[in-house]
Amino acid sequence: MDICAVFQAQVLYNFTAEPGNNELSVREGETLTVLSQTVGRGWIEVQNSSGRTGLVPEGYLQVSSGESSFHVLLEPVHVSTVTELLQDRRINPSRIVAAEITDFTIKVLSPSAVDDEDGEWDDDWDDQSVGGYHGNNQLDGEGGASGQIITFIDNSTTLVVCALIGSCSLSNQMGEVGPVWLYPSSSLDCVIADPKKESKLYGLKSFIEYQLTPSTTNRPVNHRYKHFDWLYERLLEKFGSALPIPPLPDKQVTGRFEEDFIRMRMEHLQAWMSRMCRHPVVSQSDVFQLFLTYRDEKEWKAGKRRTERDEAVGPMIFTLIESEAAELDAAQVEQRCEQYSQFTKSMDDGVRELLNVGHAHWKRCTGPLPKEYKRIGRAFRNLSNVFNSSKYPGEETLTNAMTVAGETYEEIAVIVAQQPQKDLHFLLETNSEYKGLLSCFPEIIAVHKAAVEKVKEADRLVSAGKINNNDRKWMNQRISCMSYSLQAEMNHFHSNRIYDYNRVMQLYLEQQVTFYQQIADKLRAALSQFTTL
Amino acid sequence: MDICAVFQAQVLYNFTAEPGNNELSVREGETLTVLSQTVGRGWIEVQNSSGRTGLVPEGYLQVSSGESSFHVLLEPVHVSTVTELLQDRRINPSRIVAAEITDFTIKVLSPSAVDDEDGEWDDDWDDQSVGGYHGNNQLDGEGGASGQIITFIDNSTTLVVCALIGSCSLSNQMGEVGPVWLYPSSSLDCVIADPKKESKLYGLKSFIEYQLTPSTTNRPVNHRYKHFDWLYERLLEKFGSALPIPPLPDKQVTGRFEEDFIRMRMEHLQAWMSRMCRHPVVSQSDVFQLFLTYRDEKEWKAGKRRTERDEAVGPMIFTLIESEAAELDAAQVEQRCEQYSQFTKSMDDGVRELLNVGHAHWKRCTGPLPKEYKRIGRAFRNLSNVFNSSKYPGEETLTNAMTVAGETYEEIAVIVAQQPQKDLHFLLETNSEYKGLLSCFPEIIAVHKAAVEKVKEADRLVSAGKINNNDRKWMNQRISCMSYSLQAEMNHFHSNRIYDYNRVMQLYLEQQVTFYQQIADKLRAALSQFTTL
Repeated sequence: MDICAVFQAQVLYNFTAEPGNNELSVREGETLTVLSQTVGRGWIEVQNSSGRTGLVPEGYLQVSSGESSFHVLLEPVHVSTVTELLQDRRINPSRIVAAEITDFTIKVLSPSAVDDEDGEWDDDWDDQSVGGYHGNNQLDGEGGASGQIITFIDNSTTLVVCALIGSCSLSNQMGEVGPVWLYPSSSLDCVIADPKKESKLYGLKSFIEYQLTPSTTNRPVNHRYKHFDWLYERLLEKFGSALPIPPLPDKQVTGRFEEDFIRMRMEHLQAWMSRMCRHPVVSQSDVFQLFLTYRDEKEWKAGKRRTERDEAVGPMIFTLIESEAAELDAAQVEQRCEQYSQFTKSMDDGVRELLNVGHAHWKRCTGPLPKEYKRIGRAFRNLSNVFNSSKYPGEETLTNAMTVAGETYEEIAVIVAQQPQKDLHFLLETNSEYKGLLSCFPEIIAVHKAAVEKVKEADRLVSAGKINNNDRKWMNQRISCMSYSLQAEMNHFHSNRIYDYNRVMQLYLEQQVTFYQQIADKLRAALSQFTTL
Repeated sequence: MDICAVFQAQVLYNFTAEPGNNELSVREGETLTVLSQTVGRGWIEVQNSSGRTGLVPEGYLQVSSGESSFHVLLEPVHVSTVTELLQDRRINPSRIVAAEITDFTIKVLSPSAVDDEDGEWDDDWDDQSVGGYHGNNQLDGEGGASGQIITFIDNSTTLVVCALIGSCSLSNQMGEVGPVWLYPSSSLDCVIADPKKESKLYGLKSFIEYQLTPSTTNRPVNHRYKHFDWLYERLLEKFGSALPIPPLPDKQVTGRFEEDFIRMRMEHLQAWMSRMCRHPVVSQSDVFQLFLTYRDEKEWKAGKRRTERDEAVGPMIFTLIESEAAELDAAQVEQRCEQYSQFTKSMDDGVRELLNVGHAHWKRCTGPLPKEYKRIGRAFRNLSNVFNSSKYPGEETLTNAMTVAGETYEEIAVIVAQQPQKDLHFLLETNSEYKGLLSCFPEIIAVHKAAVEKVKEADRLVSAGKINNNDRKWMNQRISCMSYSLQAEMNHFHSNRIYDYNRVMQLYLEQQVTFYQQIADKLRAALSQFTTL
């Protein structure tokens, strides 16, 4: 286990741990290693010099950057191109700018891109009279929220790669899949429930507030859709160049308070939130934790301001990744990148086709098909009524049986129309989610491809005297690191995909079996009403 | 049992019966009662004075009309209006013509309306060099073919109604359904098979010849479609005012020799023929028996000429019906007629609606629906292929299972597309047959209604001195007889309807159960391929 220590903390006052609370007793003057500042508001996870870990209240510590080589990563860095990213050597005194290189421009994600759903978002946050963030966190106000460690492990080489984004304990899992993210020992989940219509401005503005209860704290917090949208924009801005951040459910203006719409939106938000909770990097990020665990309006607003000032976003996320794993050569990176590109494109095509036919099938199953079964049923019943009017004796058995047959087809019409909600729905939802996830990969892969192109030019640049061999080596290290990150993310994607599709296919088929069996049984019962010839 | 004897026969030569052949020994000079001249070409069914019945060769007998009151009915009668029909009192010396009465015009069915399917019909029958019909049948050449007795029995009153159309033995069946036709003791059926492409004029003209084997003779005869069409026109002309003669399958010029078309046409001809065989009046008529039992071309051609000259057709059929049952009053007849009119109209609506939705359902089941299942299956298989390309280890179970699921939906597509042929087909065929039958009732009911209107005017006519009370009584007898005939036909229709719909609904539901059960089982097998989560 080889975690790269980043922050150190000086103990300001003695603190005695309460037993059973995972706290750590510390003494004034002691130097600690900071493991995580995101475990819960007001607490910092630390390790003391004897290796023991635990939680200490923030107010008891003075956190500072350590003397490690990662120190400079904490500086606010403005990088908006892959060239700059690859050549950013602030960690290295001799910074080189290769002006001749045509930059690949990264789409800049503006925080102001957050839509104001009902025109009152700004009002909400006009209140600037919020005190400093607990006062004792030096990172606050420095575009902080970077104090995280993302660790991923290349199981095939058993080399550990550390990065400065999140904090995870190392997993012992081994496999042949290559680099994987390190998953937290206990998984996070979050239940969204109890949507409530709230209003403000004396009822002029109304909105729906959802209750979110994370499994870690079991303490509910409330959020509106536009808060989710804010979180989405933050996550996209911060992680979008490296991780797929799937889009939220569409905004919808009309019928916002219809029960069905609210239920559906909540279901979509739940799916989105569950997927984010399952991601080891996203789920442990400051902004995500803030969203789920803020204690009061003051903490929420301060956290919101802080994360909005975070500058370690976009391609800069890669400046926060440091790898100790074996360096990959550019050709290998290019090959992997091409392979993932091919896979995600093919899967995107497959998912879209399934969505297309699924939506068409949905329309048929809820529209013309049940109408037809209803008409068939009615036609049988009508004929039965006509027969009944014949006054011909002894045909009660036939007319009764035909009425039952007619009613059965009318019931089948209802069953057919309700069925998509029971099976196709989940198939389409899952595939919609994957369509969203897959739509993120072109950006991620484009960033890698641009980096690959730059590195391929390195030889020429060295010959031209534009960069030296050290610079070239540095570029190689960075792209190798980017490739490890992409591989870890693809492996995360694959394992989730297998789980999700296994689950949804089984659910779909189970429901389909029940559906067809139910119809067969109903028809068998109708058949038994007829007299045997 | 109270059969009205119509024909008598003088025995010309001694004839000794062969035992076990249902023959009757007779002596020259003996007088016999003719029961049937249609039992088989060359034989006449007779009853001797001691009450014994059996068959005698035609050549041994001289058939003559008896002295009964029915004698005059054998005269060629030209009646084309209901008025004439009701007032036709050639059986009564004082014939009255009420010129003031507006006639209800009966559609005259021209024998020349027979379409020449391939332009060679006339050629076939240009040969007029055919000798007299066995020479010894005096009815031949007199517009004969009228030597039949139709008997129907009013079970509710146990009164027997006899008519001069066909010959049936009386049935012992009792019920509460009112008048019923007397069904022959052994039912006739006819198997159509072995369609052969034949040609003439050195291959310039080709046609399909079907082999018909009646259950009575078990001796096959051959007929082309246009022969069926000729038979249909004859039956329609003769019985169309009293009995529904359902139309033949449509003519179709293109693709006449396509296998599917031939198979389908044969199936339709078989259904039509079976229905005609089931009708006690039609099946025992001269023309129908000729069609099924002619021995050679000569007999066929002579019979054809003879039946084409038959003048006891159209509304004239009612002149051949004599009733000994209690006379019904006009109001009662009108009420029954109205009731049947209502029933057949309602059933016609019901049948058409079922046909409409059935055809729409057929199109969906053979067009868009299986296409959709195929697309769903392909989408699953495609995704499985994409997943397989991920190189991610340990997902073979999922990809294999998804391939099976995909293949299953592709199989379901085929099953869905083939299903209508297995169930909907028979439902639609039966209903098409009934649509054809029901299309005949408006004509039949219109004839009755026109008669009812005339009879309602009778009081006025008596007051005006146009007709006398005897005439009026005669009109009442005739319309009462028409009503018994209509009731017997409706009862025939009802009992067949109950049988047919009971059979076809069971067949449809059985096949539908099998269909849905098969899909459920296939999907269950596909589901079992997935690993349990």
